[in-house]
Amino acid sequence: MPHIRKDPVTKQSVIISSERTGRPSDYVNSSERHIANSELSCPFCRGHEMKTPDPVYTVYAEQEEIWQVRIVPNKYPIISETHENELPKENELFHASSSKGFHDVIIEHPDHYFNFYHAQTEDFFYIFKAVMMRLKDLGKNEDMMYSLYFKNFGPEAGASLYHSHSQIITTPFIPVQMYEEISGALDYYTKNGRCVYCDIIKEEKSLNERVICENNNFIAISPFASKSPYQIYIIPKEHSDSIVHVSSSNILDFSSILKDVFDRLYKLLGEVGFNYVLHTLLPTLENKYKTSSHWFLDIMPKMSKLAGYELGSGVFINSITPEDATQQLRNIL
Amino acid sequence: MPHIRKDPVTKQSVIISSERTGRPSDYVNSSERHIANSELSCPFCRGHEMKTPDPVYTVYAEQEEIWQVRIVPNKYPIISETHENELPKENELFHASSSKGFHDVIIEHPDHYFNFYHAQTEDFFYIFKAVMMRLKDLGKNEDMMYSLYFKNFGPEAGASLYHSHSQIITTPFIPVQMYEEISGALDYYTKNGRCVYCDIIKEEKSLNERVICENNNFIAISPFASKSPYQIYIIPKEHSDSIVHVSSSNILDFSSILKDVFDRLYKLLGEVGFNYVLHTLLPTLENKYKTSSHWFLDIMPKMSKLAGYELGSGVFINSITPEDATQQLRNIL
Repeated sequence: MPHIRKDPVTKQSVIISSERTGRPSDYVNSSERHIANSELSCPFCRGHEMKTPDPVYTVYAEQEEIWQVRIVPNKYPIISETHENELPKENELFHASSSKGFHDVIIEHPDHYFNFYHAQTEDFFYIFKAVMMRLKDLGKNEDMMYSLYFKNFGPEAGASLYHSHSQIITTPFIPVQMYEEISGALDYYTKNGRCVYCDIIKEEKSLNERVICENNNFIAISPFASKSPYQIYIIPKEHSDSIVHVSSSNILDFSSILKDVFDRLYKLLGEVGFNYVLHTLLPTLENKYKTSSHWFLDIMPKMSKLAGYELGSGVFINSITPEDATQQLRNIL
Repeated sequence: MPHIRKDPVTKQSVIISSERTGRPSDYVNSSERHIANSELSCPFCRGHEMKTPDPVYTVYAEQEEIWQVRIVPNKYPIISETHENELPKENELFHASSSKGFHDVIIEHPDHYFNFYHAQTEDFFYIFKAVMMRLKDLGKNEDMMYSLYFKNFGPEAGASLYHSHSQIITTPFIPVQMYEEISGALDYYTKNGRCVYCDIIKEEKSLNERVICENNNFIAISPFASKSPYQIYIIPKEHSDSIVHVSSSNILDFSSILKDVFDRLYKLLGEVGFNYVLHTLLPTLENKYKTSSHWFLDIMPKMSKLAGYELGSGVFINSITPEDATQQLRNIL
């Protein structure tokens, strides 16, 4: 059964999840776009609802009775409750624990051929509204520390099914990267009395070298220390620690800048694979971090592979300066 | 020019290196093994020595005048000295610095078709002896904090040239993952008065669930919190913080367990891509960490891609338990 182990030296958590190997894939060769399975067998298409577990959240299109977005439990979850007797032997060095948690799949559209690069603002609105509502619900579990919403687009970015979808993994621990950010932001707040992301936005607007585009409530920038080519942060301009507090009109504004950003990426790079990750707090962490944390979406086009140096050292090597990436993304429209 | 930037929130270092894009590749499609360039144009083959910069270290085969292993500066280095005026604008939030350092390529064999999975013990001996000698030399630079020796095998693991080679990247900072390990090991030492790796070896031998194989001086284990399927640590049984202090007869013993491990991997998984990374101290860090750190080789077969969750969270998901991986690797010979 899935469970969580801690590295005896670094204390970093690893999820051991051997149940994942049986899951289906649409891609014959995981490095190519060639689709093996057809629409007919797709578990995510409208009309195939019985192929997934019952939804935990559903969005219906306005004035229609058919669904627009469905959130269902993952049939091959990387986390689920572990029984004590299934854990490995423990001692002072080796710690393992149950991987209680939630693993959701967001089926983003009923149409098999719906594609993020050609989506409309309202498509994004339905998806992010659904994610927001689900995160609100997940936040009611007091023993859950983090819900990580992410998307893998294209087999090169780790997607196994073609039909447009994304995922939420909710864990009883704060993932190490999120912990580094949350603590870094708290340190800055303690020292300066201001949110570090609010200061970054101010600074980026004044320098105007890494701002890709903006609208009323959101700004898209190439982060100063971008880890990979064309990495993009979309950040709300007003301080906000969590997407769960965002109004519908702001979600619409967010959807509109998202469309702008994906238009630019598509025109510049074509239908390149990408990962995105939402950095946002659950209510369980808000007491401590509400004033110092600031939510944002981190988009990472898949332009190269991580090799030994990055994997071993945790240090990323980026072959394009964020300023050059910004210029290219600015000028393409 | 290449330079180092610090993330304003997490303080993590990123290397910005736009000079890398011009480097050659043997692989038409970076996801496939198909070789585009032939032996004729290979810069690493015997007879083509003028295609690389002059070597910084050379090993000659016994009683022969031709080279066996050559270490040369990388023609497309990810680090090199930056001039102050080439750095991006800095302020309280945005820190950038020169990426002074070294980037070496180890040309592991004169033969274009030399292959790690079919190598002999003496081939490994020449390679690791050369690496050890070069690390000794690099350690004389007092402003360099870490030399990371690593190998990418196969395009899926990030190799761009077919001819067998590995690399050393030497930086003025300690990479974040190495820092986590070195500090974790120091914490353990401070608390218990013993090296954590020495204790792990003792514990693993007693449990006997994750020991793949061993010889007089080395042990190969599946780490308790393996980050990926079939991850393997090869660790010296006696406490030793750095490979630079190891005797020739111990390097021979190390080479022999390496051959054993690659025989097992090949029989079980075929010619699968892999990364390995050497965890070892430079003399610059020995004053503080000599008694608490312990060198080892970390081998990571490339069985799957990192996707959004891993990239965003820093948490790895492993689909095979280390105990199962050990059983398979034990029984295959």
